[in-house]
Amino acid sequence: MFDVLDRLDQSIRARRGGDPAHSYVAALFARGRPRIAQKVGEEAVEAVIAAMAGDRAALTGEAADLIFHLAVLLEEGGSSLGAVAEELARREGRSGIAEKAARAEG
Amino acid sequence: MFDVLDRLDQSIRARRGGDPAHSYVAALFARGRPRIAQKVGEEAVEAVIAAMAGDRAALTGEAADLIFHLAVLLEEGGSSLGAVAEELARREGRSGIAEKAARAEG
Amino acid sequence: MFDVLDRLDQSIRARRGGDPAHSYVAALFARGRPRIAQKVGEEAVEAVIAAMAGDRAALTGEAADLIFHLAVLLEEGGSSLGAVAEELARREGRSGIAEKAARAEG
Amino acid sequence: MFDVLDRLDQSIRARRGGDPAHSYVAALFARGRPRIAQKVGEEAVEAVIAAMAGDRAALTGEAADLIFHLAVLLEEGGSSLGAVAEELARREGRSGIAEKAARAEG
Repeated sequence: MFDVLDRLDQSIRARRGGDPAHSYVAALFARGRPRIAQKVGEEAVEAVIAAMAGDRAALTGEAADLIFHLAVLLEEGGSSLGAVAEELARREGRSGIAEKAARAEG
Repeated sequence: MFDVLDRLDQSIRARRGGDPAHSYVAALFARGRPRIAQKVGEEAVEAVIAAMAGDRAALTGEAADLIFHLAVLLEEGGSSLGAVAEELARREGRSGIAEKAARAEG
Repeated sequence: MFDVLDRLDQSIRARRGGDPAHSYVAALFARGRPRIAQKVGEEAVEAVIAAMAGDRAALTGEAADLIFHLAVLLEEGGSSLGAVAEELARREGRSGIAEKAARAEG
Repeated sequence: MFDVLDRLDQSIRARRGGDPAHSYVAALFARGRPRIAQKVGEEAVEAVIAAMAGDRAALTGEAADLIFHLAVLLEEGGSSLGAVAEELARREGRSGIAEKAARAEG
């Protein structure tokens, strides 16, 4: 089921140099890092608001928007959802309170 | 590689009713929805800042924190990363500008 | 100079029940609390991004947008910029590290 | 009442070069721009959540935290709450829908 995230990484990479008139992803890259970062912030706020409103369908939809734009921001910065999955796997040994300490700060 | 997200969904579900003194996830649930939502907002801001600072490793790490806390917020609201992946798969047919129109603004 | 904030409070209150077709503020109220909250989140992200980009003029402009929409959110929730100013004045006695402890959490 | 914002600008400017061990503001400056920007993002999210929760006192308190940290971010970037007030005053002639058009989207 999560293979869609691998396809999302690939699709974003493929569209990076595309025509902004025909691809939303290409248009995002054309507008540059600050605009992509802004979209990630906006979608996170929308997910927060959907959660606070207790709207499950909206929460799922906004979370999908958030992960989509996060994937673009990651690609723009030389990373990917795949690299994030590897990082999450790396953390799996640690758990609970210990894991929080490892992630630190808080 | 993305199977880690399925394990994350399961791990969060299993810890939901656990002991806050021994599990960070249980502690988050004990503090309630507003606190979980706040963590999602905070991690999104940290990802935005890491991206703007051009710090690839920090961007990957903050994105991992963001997806982790998003998974908790989704579970708290009756959804999951799995449901978000299904939503992303549902959107796959549509692409480019058409896909943006479908996601619309609202 | 800061009298503009008092006029902003008054202007927002006056337009609350106005015609959404003729007033941006009335249109915001018509769209409701989640939409107003979303605008506050968006403008905060834009201010963060302008700051990280080192763009002083954009930072000032985005901060103005943020305070404008924050004033609408406050009015929607039964508060005001004036009430926030009173709260800031109430904290003035305390300062430095002590003040942080008073604001707590962190 | 809003004179407190002028005193806040002055107080932040005065503490900028102070001892991080004795001043929260000096400690923020010592941690640098990304950390200050992050605090602004966090406080905005907390204000959004307080608004969505319908908690007027928390909304007022979080808005005060937001304006406090915004003032630090502005000073760090060579601006100030005073400059933001001037910008808001500059916009006063325009109003309603016209004003929104002027602020535009970008």
